[in-house]
Amino acid sequence: MVAARMAETRLDKEPRGLYEPIEYCLKNGGKRIRPLMTLLGCEMFGGRAEEALSPAIGLELFHNFTLMHDDIMDQAPIRRGQPAVHVKWDTNTAILSGDVLFARAYEYMLDVPDHCLRQVMELFSRTVIEVCEGQQYDMDFEKTGRVTEAEYLEMIRLKTAVLPAACLKAGAIVAGAPAVDAEKIYRFGESVGLAFQLRDDWLDAFGDEALFGKKSGGDIVANKKTWLYIKAWELSAPAQRQELDRAYSGAISDPDTKIGRVMGIFNSLGIRELAIQAMETHYQRAFEALDAIEAPAGPKENLRMLAQSLFDRAH
Amino acid sequence: MVAARMAETRLDKEPRGLYEPIEYCLKNGGKRIRPLMTLLGCEMFGGRAEEALSPAIGLELFHNFTLMHDDIMDQAPIRRGQPAVHVKWDTNTAILSGDVLFARAYEYMLDVPDHCLRQVMELFSRTVIEVCEGQQYDMDFEKTGRVTEAEYLEMIRLKTAVLPAACLKAGAIVAGAPAVDAEKIYRFGESVGLAFQLRDDWLDAFGDEALFGKKSGGDIVANKKTWLYIKAWELSAPAQRQELDRAYSGAISDPDTKIGRVMGIFNSLGIRELAIQAMETHYQRAFEALDAIEAPAGPKENLRMLAQSLFDRAH
Repeated sequence: MVAARMAETRLDKEPRGLYEPIEYCLKNGGKRIRPLMTLLGCEMFGGRAEEALSPAIGLELFHNFTLMHDDIMDQAPIRRGQPAVHVKWDTNTAILSGDVLFARAYEYMLDVPDHCLRQVMELFSRTVIEVCEGQQYDMDFEKTGRVTEAEYLEMIRLKTAVLPAACLKAGAIVAGAPAVDAEKIYRFGESVGLAFQLRDDWLDAFGDEALFGKKSGGDIVANKKTWLYIKAWELSAPAQRQELDRAYSGAISDPDTKIGRVMGIFNSLGIRELAIQAMETHYQRAFEALDAIEAPAGPKENLRMLAQSLFDRAH
Repeated sequence: MVAARMAETRLDKEPRGLYEPIEYCLKNGGKRIRPLMTLLGCEMFGGRAEEALSPAIGLELFHNFTLMHDDIMDQAPIRRGQPAVHVKWDTNTAILSGDVLFARAYEYMLDVPDHCLRQVMELFSRTVIEVCEGQQYDMDFEKTGRVTEAEYLEMIRLKTAVLPAACLKAGAIVAGAPAVDAEKIYRFGESVGLAFQLRDDWLDAFGDEALFGKKSGGDIVANKKTWLYIKAWELSAPAQRQELDRAYSGAISDPDTKIGRVMGIFNSLGIRELAIQAMETHYQRAFEALDAIEAPAGPKENLRMLAQSLFDRAH
C-alpha cells in the first residue's frame, strides 16, 4: 500500500536535476518498516490504515532525506548496495534534492484530518529536530575523547529511536488514540529503536558473516565508538584499556590483527553477553509499554511480532 | 519587534556544534525585509502585527536556511561581510545546522491560529519547494549553453520572488483576508521580487561603485548569465555575439579588459535602459495588483513606500 501510494508521488517533474536523485533514492528500496509502524499504530486504535497513509509516507520520505544528507556528512559511498546520491551525482545535488525531499515530507504530513493536524505536525517537527541533534552528537563523538554509555544511549535515542517512536505515535494520533496511550506507543517505539541500534552494534562484531552478508569488525576498523567499545573501555583493567586505546588510535595497521586484538578484549570482558542483556532490557521495556496500552489483542500482537522479528535477527 | 522575538529563540541549546552556527548566521543581520512584509500584510487586512509574528520569523529563518545551503553550493565564502558558515566551520556543519534551521522555520510557521494553520502551512510548503526548484534551475543554467529571457525570469521568480510574495500572503491569511485579496498581495510581492532581482543584475553593471560599496562587473567576470547578458545576446548582431561568446568563454584573462568589452556591447545595445524598462514593467504590475486590493489607504501606502524604496536604489 505504501509502495503503491509512494509510486504515485509525482517525481517526473522539472527540473530533472532535482527530482531524478529523489526518484533514484526512493526506488532503491529499504524495508519500509517505519511507514508500516504508522499504519499499525493507526489500526491499533481502531483507525483504518488508509487514513494514516499520508503521514506514513511523509515519515518514510523524511527518513530517506536523512540518509541522503547523512551519507554526505559520513562520506558513505554506498547506500542499499547502490552508489549514494552524492557519489552518483555530486554533493550539491544531494544537498538540494535532500532539501526538497524534506519539504515533500512536510507536505505529506499536512495531509491528515483537521482534528489532528497540529498534533501530527508538532510531533513531526520535534522529531526532525531531535534526529538532527542525534546526528550532530554522533559526529561530535568521533572527535571527542571519551563518551559515556549514557551519552551514547542518548545519542542513538535521538538519531535512531525517536523516529520509529514518532511513526507509531503519528498513526495513533490519526486514529484518535487517548493521549496516554499515544505516549505509551511512543515509548514502545523508542525502546525498540534503542534495542535495534544495539543489535546493529552487536552484529558488526558478533554477527554471522555468511548470514548477514556483511564483513565483521567494520566498526572496529573504523574506530567507531559503539556500545561494545564504550562498555569494554568502562570495564577494562589498566593493561587492557591501554591495548584498547592503542588499537583505536590507529597504531595497528593490519585490519585483521586489529579486529583480533579488540575481539579478544571484548570476549575476555563478556561484552557479547552484556550487549544481549542490554538489548533484552530495552525489549523488556518496550513490551511493558505495549502491554499497558488499552487496545485489542490482535493489533498489539502485530506490533509484538514486528519487534520480535527485529530482535530474532540479533542472535 | 521581529528582532526582539527572534532573540528569544532558544539557541543556547546543546549540541553547541549544531546551534552555534545558527546563532552566528542570525546575528549577522540582514535587512529583515521579508518578516516586515508579513507584518505589513497582516496589518493591511485589519490584523495586529503581533498575530503574524511567528510566521514572519519562520519565513526569515527559512530565508537564512537557504543562504546557508546556497553558500555551500555556490562556494560563496562571504555572507553579509562575514565568513559563511561552511567556511567558518565546515560543509557538514552548514548542511546539518541548515537542516535544523529549516525545521525551526516550520515550527514557527505552526504557531498560528487554528483557523489558518493549514492554509499557512500549505503556502509555506509550496514556497519552499519552489525556492529549491529555482536554485536548481540557477545551477543548471551555469552548465547550460543557452538560456532564454523567459527561462531566466521563471528561474528568478522561483528563486527570489515567490518568497516575498508568500511573506505578504502569509500575513494576509493570518488576518483573515478574502482569498482574492490574498492572491493580489501575492502577485504584488512576486512582481516586486522580480524587479528587485533585475535591479541586482543592473547594479552589478551600472551601479555607482562608491554608493553601493560593491565593485562593478563582478557578474561579468564570473560569466554569470544575468538578464543583461541574456538580453544583450538576444539583440546582438553576429559580430557582437561572437565577441560576447568569446568574453564569456574565458578567452579574456584580464578582468578589466573583459568588463570593458562586455560593457561596450551592453552600451551599444542600450541594455541599461532596456533593463530599467523591464524593472518598471514589473513595478507597474506590482502597483496595479496593490491598487486593486480592497484595503485602507494607509497600509497600502506603507507597502508602496517599501517597494519604492527598493526601486529608488536602482538608478
